[in-house]
Amino acid sequence: MTVKLTEYFQDAKQQFLVVAGPCSIESREQLLDTAKVVADSGATLLRGGIYKLRTSPDSFQGLGEDAYLLVKEAKEQLGLPFIAEITDPRQIPLFQDYVDVIQVGSRNMYNYALLKELSELDLPVVLKRGFSATLDEWIKAADYLRSGGNDKVILCERGIRGFDNKTRNVLDLASVSYLKKYSDHIVMVDPSHATGDSNLVADMAKAAIFAGADGIMVEIHPNPEQALSDGPQALTFQAYEKLMQEIKTLLPYVQKELVRS
Amino acid sequence: MTVKLTEYFQDAKQQFLVVAGPCSIESREQLLDTAKVVADSGATLLRGGIYKLRTSPDSFQGLGEDAYLLVKEAKEQLGLPFIAEITDPRQIPLFQDYVDVIQVGSRNMYNYALLKELSELDLPVVLKRGFSATLDEWIKAADYLRSGGNDKVILCERGIRGFDNKTRNVLDLASVSYLKKYSDHIVMVDPSHATGDSNLVADMAKAAIFAGADGIMVEIHPNPEQALSDGPQALTFQAYEKLMQEIKTLLPYVQKELVRS
Amino acid sequence: MTVKLTEYFQDAKQQFLVVAGPCSIESREQLLDTAKVVADSGATLLRGGIYKLRTSPDSFQGLGEDAYLLVKEAKEQLGLPFIAEITDPRQIPLFQDYVDVIQVGSRNMYNYALLKELSELDLPVVLKRGFSATLDEWIKAADYLRSGGNDKVILCERGIRGFDNKTRNVLDLASVSYLKKYSDHIVMVDPSHATGDSNLVADMAKAAIFAGADGIMVEIHPNPEQALSDGPQALTFQAYEKLMQEIKTLLPYVQKELVRS
Amino acid sequence: MTVKLTEYFQDAKQQFLVVAGPCSIESREQLLDTAKVVADSGATLLRGGIYKLRTSPDSFQGLGEDAYLLVKEAKEQLGLPFIAEITDPRQIPLFQDYVDVIQVGSRNMYNYALLKELSELDLPVVLKRGFSATLDEWIKAADYLRSGGNDKVILCERGIRGFDNKTRNVLDLASVSYLKKYSDHIVMVDPSHATGDSNLVADMAKAAIFAGADGIMVEIHPNPEQALSDGPQALTFQAYEKLMQEIKTLLPYVQKELVRS
Repeated sequence: MTVKLTEYFQDAKQQFLVVAGPCSIESREQLLDTAKVVADSGATLLRGGIYKLRTSPDSFQGLGEDAYLLVKEAKEQLGLPFIAEITDPRQIPLFQDYVDVIQVGSRNMYNYALLKELSELDLPVVLKRGFSATLDEWIKAADYLRSGGNDKVILCERGIRGFDNKTRNVLDLASVSYLKKYSDHIVMVDPSHATGDSNLVADMAKAAIFAGADGIMVEIHPNPEQALSDGPQALTFQAYEKLMQEIKTLLPYVQKELVRS
Repeated sequence: MTVKLTEYFQDAKQQFLVVAGPCSIESREQLLDTAKVVADSGATLLRGGIYKLRTSPDSFQGLGEDAYLLVKEAKEQLGLPFIAEITDPRQIPLFQDYVDVIQVGSRNMYNYALLKELSELDLPVVLKRGFSATLDEWIKAADYLRSGGNDKVILCERGIRGFDNKTRNVLDLASVSYLKKYSDHIVMVDPSHATGDSNLVADMAKAAIFAGADGIMVEIHPNPEQALSDGPQALTFQAYEKLMQEIKTLLPYVQKELVRS
Repeated sequence: MTVKLTEYFQDAKQQFLVVAGPCSIESREQLLDTAKVVADSGATLLRGGIYKLRTSPDSFQGLGEDAYLLVKEAKEQLGLPFIAEITDPRQIPLFQDYVDVIQVGSRNMYNYALLKELSELDLPVVLKRGFSATLDEWIKAADYLRSGGNDKVILCERGIRGFDNKTRNVLDLASVSYLKKYSDHIVMVDPSHATGDSNLVADMAKAAIFAGADGIMVEIHPNPEQALSDGPQALTFQAYEKLMQEIKTLLPYVQKELVRS
Repeated sequence: MTVKLTEYFQDAKQQFLVVAGPCSIESREQLLDTAKVVADSGATLLRGGIYKLRTSPDSFQGLGEDAYLLVKEAKEQLGLPFIAEITDPRQIPLFQDYVDVIQVGSRNMYNYALLKELSELDLPVVLKRGFSATLDEWIKAADYLRSGGNDKVILCERGIRGFDNKTRNVLDLASVSYLKKYSDHIVMVDPSHATGDSNLVADMAKAAIFAGADGIMVEIHPNPEQALSDGPQALTFQAYEKLMQEIKTLLPYVQKELVRS
């Protein structure tokens, strides 16, 4: 029932991690329905936003503490480990109780006070690339995460800021190839935030596999049009299941297999 | 002896704020020597880094708590209010005791947990623009700072990330003009971080005045070549004093006068 | 009656060039009315688009050859030299007959075939910076212009591509300061294309003076709302005349004077 | 013996184009050796620079007219159609005699005078994306190419300008997916110029297939370290042959097959 992340960190080169779930946890039904699809698909980790970092203080900020018990229920019911984004170092105790992998979002990649504290924990941390972070800044932010002894760091490319508005960000897949050739980092890709467009997510997920990625993180929703945040980039369950089939077909061509919890 | 920032916030349109000091507080002598030059020049606020956010965990991170007593001494000796960058919400109590204006750096512009807490305080906050923050994101981050009632917010343009490496960042002076025309925000400019080149700082400071800025923030150092951080962009005392003379000559052309503490 | 551009090139450090006129030449009345305002204001050069490079082939492409006689009439009537943008090397013979200064637009900064041909001429050339040209690429493009012996090259900063859409481009005034400190180039600024917003043009023109610019180029129109191209960035005659007054007031502070034809 | 490009344009959805060859044609031996490898690998088109657009006028500018006879010899010897970059409309007659597909480089994407002239021809044109061209500008530039009736236009994504220097450009593979979902354009990818790093080229070529690309263009060289231009991004013959094997293995997964001449 615990994720075999230990093995993942020992041998990421042969393994591929799929993280899926809603952008925000919105309700018990939404989380449990989604979690079931994620578990059935063979993914590794369930994701779901507890505290949301939204550009405007007037936007939906996540359920906050009300979400923890829903997370607990989903984990128990479906046997899936859970990843959520931390937004304040004072959330660490609750995260240690309820969360299996901690995500640091793009907005906090430079929040070195937070990174230093996470470096003292024994939990894996996914570090998203800042909106316009250079590879050097990103790697050095990972050094902050490792500075206290935490050696379970995963980098996640999620698109950088560009000059066009046709896609939400510019997915920099060459950065993944670069990191795999020139560093020892495990690297995931988030095609949902990168493109902001559910029509492009599957193409980018598959491209990520061949760019060298060790995993992907995708947003799915029972009804994307009614999502409280980031609906346009969420896959329907059906589109997600089709993508998972394709991923399973393609992984042998990069000599990798899916990590299961 | 307290800064007349109250009046500044009441009538910023007619006033101009100069913030000067070292990037990092390095020693008692460095801070006091610099503070004397800043006070003698007629500037408004002394700046100095207590905790430094450095890209690498191996770079000089600031004196930390050892700096507070030096700040206290400088303030008492020279009658200058002090601004420093906060890097963790748990620094708030000490900042309330020793610091007159709080700066939120570019790396923390999206750290909404921090912004929300600062919004509860009665201290003015300078909010630097994120490395690639849109004007909308920057204004909304200021909304977080105002959300708890704090109405003493100053935006500070400090250059955005660009594709060339001839200057450290791209100083976006049109953003200053835009904010003055289309919002009610007070806007400063930091030509030191924007250019990263002390040869360009004075030109950009003067240009900022005509772009509509309500103030500037510049880094100075008794010996830039030996600075522990950001030496290439620090003005010598002599260059700084020359710039202050020019600023005093130019302010009447924009119907502004220097705010004195 | 001919422009004293010879003297300008000999001693640009003490002189300041103002280029003004419509984005496109639209009609005889529009050009002559505008030319009169430009002449009366004491500007150096009249500008006006003959061939327009428009993103879409369906947009207004300029009057083309019909414009030459209008240019001739305006020059004779008002004694103003004329600058226009060249878009094809085969326009050179007509340009030699009718035009005093040739402009190479941003879209052609990398059109080295064109630059090499212009380098053989005795006419001054204004080389606009490409949308995302590095300073090095821009300077090297100027080297192409100089490669055949033409030593009357003026660089013109017109904003670089950015990630925000609040301004049309990002005016990089530090590039002007950089070029003045580290190269021997004459540098102008085009605040109209840089901002795309007539409310910001005057601020940026004045800021450019203090950034070290040797001149500015602004778009004006008798009725900006009815302009066939780029209306939102065109100054009204009244706003332009106010700006010219301000420029005349400020030039002594940078020890420069306006070049008159 | 002529390329079946007609069929390609009729049914690009099922077909995949591989263009390979040196950045610049440097010598008879270099071209013929490379052409043999390209032909043996089953690629569609041989590429090779005749006129090079180099940032500096002092860099190697290509063999120019001396290259045409070498091209003729390579084509006759190996039965491969040839693509080269045009840099001046006056090269059209020679291109019509010697070249099968014309390439418009990034530096000329906005050179509408050139595009209009190419739109009158019956030759296919590959239009590379400008350094910082939006998708809208790129599509509209293709409209210029089609405006005179030429319906054989291929777009080629080659990386956009970014803020990091770890890769030469930022390969925007989501733009490929976007164009395939929302336009009727044929889209290729040039991973060589995009990354500037031969270690990353194969990963990006394979990722491009899954992003939806209809072809790739790669630079190869018998001895990359001695190439007169762009050596660091050129594949060795061995690396290229390995990539071709992988491409042939992967194409069935996107229901495509290699176009042969």
